[in-house]
Amino acid sequence: MATQKSKQPAPDATRRSEKSRRAIYDAALDLVAEVGYPRTTVEGIAARAGVGKQTIYRWWSSKAEVLLEAFLDLSEQAAQQAAPGQAYAIPDTGDLAADLKAVLRMTVDQLKDPRFEAPSRALAAEGVVNEQVGRVFVAKLLEPSLQLYVDRVRAAQEAGQVRPEVDPRIALELWVSPLAQRWLQYTGPISYDYTDTLVDYALHGLAPR
Amino acid sequence: MATQKSKQPAPDATRRSEKSRRAIYDAALDLVAEVGYPRTTVEGIAARAGVGKQTIYRWWSSKAEVLLEAFLDLSEQAAQQAAPGQAYAIPDTGDLAADLKAVLRMTVDQLKDPRFEAPSRALAAEGVVNEQVGRVFVAKLLEPSLQLYVDRVRAAQEAGQVRPEVDPRIALELWVSPLAQRWLQYTGPISYDYTDTLVDYALHGLAPR
Repeated sequence: MATQKSKQPAPDATRRSEKSRRAIYDAALDLVAEVGYPRTTVEGIAARAGVGKQTIYRWWSSKAEVLLEAFLDLSEQAAQQAAPGQAYAIPDTGDLAADLKAVLRMTVDQLKDPRFEAPSRALAAEGVVNEQVGRVFVAKLLEPSLQLYVDRVRAAQEAGQVRPEVDPRIALELWVSPLAQRWLQYTGPISYDYTDTLVDYALHGLAPR
Repeated sequence: MATQKSKQPAPDATRRSEKSRRAIYDAALDLVAEVGYPRTTVEGIAARAGVGKQTIYRWWSSKAEVLLEAFLDLSEQAAQQAAPGQAYAIPDTGDLAADLKAVLRMTVDQLKDPRFEAPSRALAAEGVVNEQVGRVFVAKLLEPSLQLYVDRVRAAQEAGQVRPEVDPRIALELWVSPLAQRWLQYTGPISYDYTDTLVDYALHGLAPR
């Protein structure tokens, strides 16, 4: 036990590490936003973060891994800012429409936040032409947040508010994908009104009732 | 009149021009698929098409213009293949669901066609990080085909099959955007079953009726 304890870093070393880690995340996000994914390198990230290349390779094995964790960290920060101290889940007040609208309004804010927008665009663009990057980032970044909608739609099915035969993984695309496409491809403006409308159309359908 | 007639190119010259134009379109689409938009140049297109740079600049003022017309030509060819001799419109058989499903099945085929896929991805990726390119190509390529859905949804509103208060430009995103996102971001597989399901969910809604 004494041996194990002596391996723990001193408090100063931990603080130094935490500071380096944050500098590396910031450098990675800034760089990919400025020069794009292909021209972002571990060397470039190290230089901008003011650390040695070895420091990066001690913690991560590639630029893709650094960027992935930098994005996960950014998303976590955004979630904590939006709902401090809360577990990351979609609220269940019993009113599906209201819950979806509330979460989508937060997403609208996040998509318009410049700190989030530029690196996300650079990564999304690379994912479009580089299937491997696309698949990894979708699996690690996008799919876990889509899963929260799956859970919320399932709860609504149990409460009788969504038809039992509906596939929740497809259902969520009726509001997630239109917002994503407007943001990614500049096919239209993004606003609270717009996402509210998507939820109403998706839940109630276009055909008269 | 005699003077005007003498200005007409000889049949051989017209054939030569048509052949060059086609070679330039093919070269532009191949090149953007292989090296991406930023590294595609007018010089590179000319070299691959076996024409002089001047030939390209006689007809177009920039690589963006060449690519735009090459894509418009490709889309027209695809439409003509799918429905020879027909004007490019969404059928109106009186059954909105069936008409949307038929068109989306053709889109699924087109998205999976390798001749179409690689250059479209390269262009879409550039549009994500280059707002100017994104906006021009959306306005010239994507928006005109979305407008066909707007017209079809309007006709359905007049026929009482879609609620009168629905905004057709938002409504169409319930099926177009999910398909686009799965294709662009590899968020899920694409199939006829999938697009049929999107149409059913969009028209009838997720909530019980």
